[in-house]
Amino acid sequence: MRAIVITQPGEADVLAWREVPDPRPARGEVVIDVAASAVNRADILQRRGFYPPPRGASEILGLECAGVIAEIGENVEGLAVGDRVCALLAGGGYAERVAVPWEQVMPVPDGLSLREAAGLPEVACTVWANVFMAARLRRGETLLVHGGASGIGTMAVQLAKAYGARVLVTAGSAAKIQRCLDLGADEAVNYREEDFAERFNGRADVILDIMGAKYLPGNLAALATGGRLVVIGMQGGTTGEIDLGTLLAKRASITAAGLRNRPVDEKGAICRGVAGDVWPLVAAGAIRPVVHAEIPMEDAARAHRMLEEGEHIGKILLVR
Amino acid sequence: MRAIVITQPGEADVLAWREVPDPRPARGEVVIDVAASAVNRADILQRRGFYPPPRGASEILGLECAGVIAEIGENVEGLAVGDRVCALLAGGGYAERVAVPWEQVMPVPDGLSLREAAGLPEVACTVWANVFMAARLRRGETLLVHGGASGIGTMAVQLAKAYGARVLVTAGSAAKIQRCLDLGADEAVNYREEDFAERFNGRADVILDIMGAKYLPGNLAALATGGRLVVIGMQGGTTGEIDLGTLLAKRASITAAGLRNRPVDEKGAICRGVAGDVWPLVAAGAIRPVVHAEIPMEDAARAHRMLEEGEHIGKILLVR
Repeated sequence: MRAIVITQPGEADVLAWREVPDPRPARGEVVIDVAASAVNRADILQRRGFYPPPRGASEILGLECAGVIAEIGENVEGLAVGDRVCALLAGGGYAERVAVPWEQVMPVPDGLSLREAAGLPEVACTVWANVFMAARLRRGETLLVHGGASGIGTMAVQLAKAYGARVLVTAGSAAKIQRCLDLGADEAVNYREEDFAERFNGRADVILDIMGAKYLPGNLAALATGGRLVVIGMQGGTTGEIDLGTLLAKRASITAAGLRNRPVDEKGAICRGVAGDVWPLVAAGAIRPVVHAEIPMEDAARAHRMLEEGEHIGKILLVR
Repeated sequence: MRAIVITQPGEADVLAWREVPDPRPARGEVVIDVAASAVNRADILQRRGFYPPPRGASEILGLECAGVIAEIGENVEGLAVGDRVCALLAGGGYAERVAVPWEQVMPVPDGLSLREAAGLPEVACTVWANVFMAARLRRGETLLVHGGASGIGTMAVQLAKAYGARVLVTAGSAAKIQRCLDLGADEAVNYREEDFAERFNGRADVILDIMGAKYLPGNLAALATGGRLVVIGMQGGTTGEIDLGTLLAKRASITAAGLRNRPVDEKGAICRGVAGDVWPLVAAGAIRPVVHAEIPMEDAARAHRMLEEGEHIGKILLVR
């Protein structure tokens, strides 16, 4: 098969569409004929050599895909060749075929094309695992989403609104702000023009953060009593100062978590939650995939540059 | 009635046994005839003027007591004059009588004297709320307790063992270490002689911490994957550096929380949990009150000095 390979660590032009060995399904795995994948910020770190795949995972980029099951390994439950599926991957999505543990495979939400489904697994699993499973956002509570126009942001806004929460966002342009409001956000701050911590002071029951250290003081200020800060990215650095006195006075918590390095059974539990509790909302139209662009997979370099420029809203897909 | 009053902020000798107005039960409150109370570290901060009582709470010291119900206000459920009870207080325990919302009143565990019960509410509610309700310690997991020989420590060790956890402790003397092991701790480190972070590296699913900033790096090192650090005291300072990268790599969380400033309904939920899930273990003898000394209430200054010296193991009671 062909796949995008990293010819050497570096900028986007190190990505090349090459012939590589076909994946084979190990015990408990299926092989998916990939119709589309999508780019994630972690892919850029991996391309630069800073984010090696977990032990045993494919060296090929790509943390999600949609397609049709082509092969089934031993000990796989509930899936058959020909099923239209999407999947959360530990790697390997930028390719014609990919092998994945069956637990990480989900049906395509009713009414969606394979392309529309390809950009959903990472954002849906990330938001479900962090905002709902870990931070337990409840109806009537307030969620603050940083980067509200990103792939994860657009899912978080829609999912939180569908579950009856109030949603605050930050974003970096008027167009992004408008899109967040169109998706249902109740209030939005352009972080280039205004201090989010001042505007949202003490109001956020849950914060989904991608900035890490840089936003730590502001996030602590924005947390409400009993608030839960979930850090899933560290675009603003990893090491920062924390005032435990503020944390204690607010009875608040800070969690940091990624998806990729979790064991398969944990990923499976997240995927079951998403298929059971998120896909019906997608099928009903309450949550729509937000797709910024569809780029041919062999042009992955272009998709990476687009992601790095940061002007996109929603997901950038790689299609075949 | 008589009570201990703080004549002015300062050292232990500012405490005096004086005549003060009797408390009256407000709507939803009962008045308890206090048989015994107990000292807590927060009392020392309050005596020094650094920890004012929450709005509406008594100015008198004392966060817990046991005694007999003497009066019942309107809208009180399930309690009667003459009931032998213990209670979690927002203040007022160093007195002959105290008024308290009925939700914070618990029965005396079967087989215990009022004196034995007087030192249980703070430690049982703190450990239950933080280690079990917030951090969800599960059977087979490992709990690290700092200050294992303190009142809270001795309760945490016993309760975690009773729930099938493995227990690691730190303490500051050979006598304290031995007592922790006698209470069931699996492993103990004398923090004056050994680096706990090195010994317990990556092994703690839950940490109950009283040191705050000073122990933050060591606690992050001691956390296991999926670990939960709960900070309930800041004897080692409030502001420290945190490496969110380590937190993310371990998918770990940090929570900080006290009990005193929570709303009555939250305290009520904690007290119901303690009465339902902890008291039966006390009645069965699986958990024993650990009492260091019984001091006459009018000598509260002596109890405070004893607590400040830090050589005690378990609770210091104030008895009448």
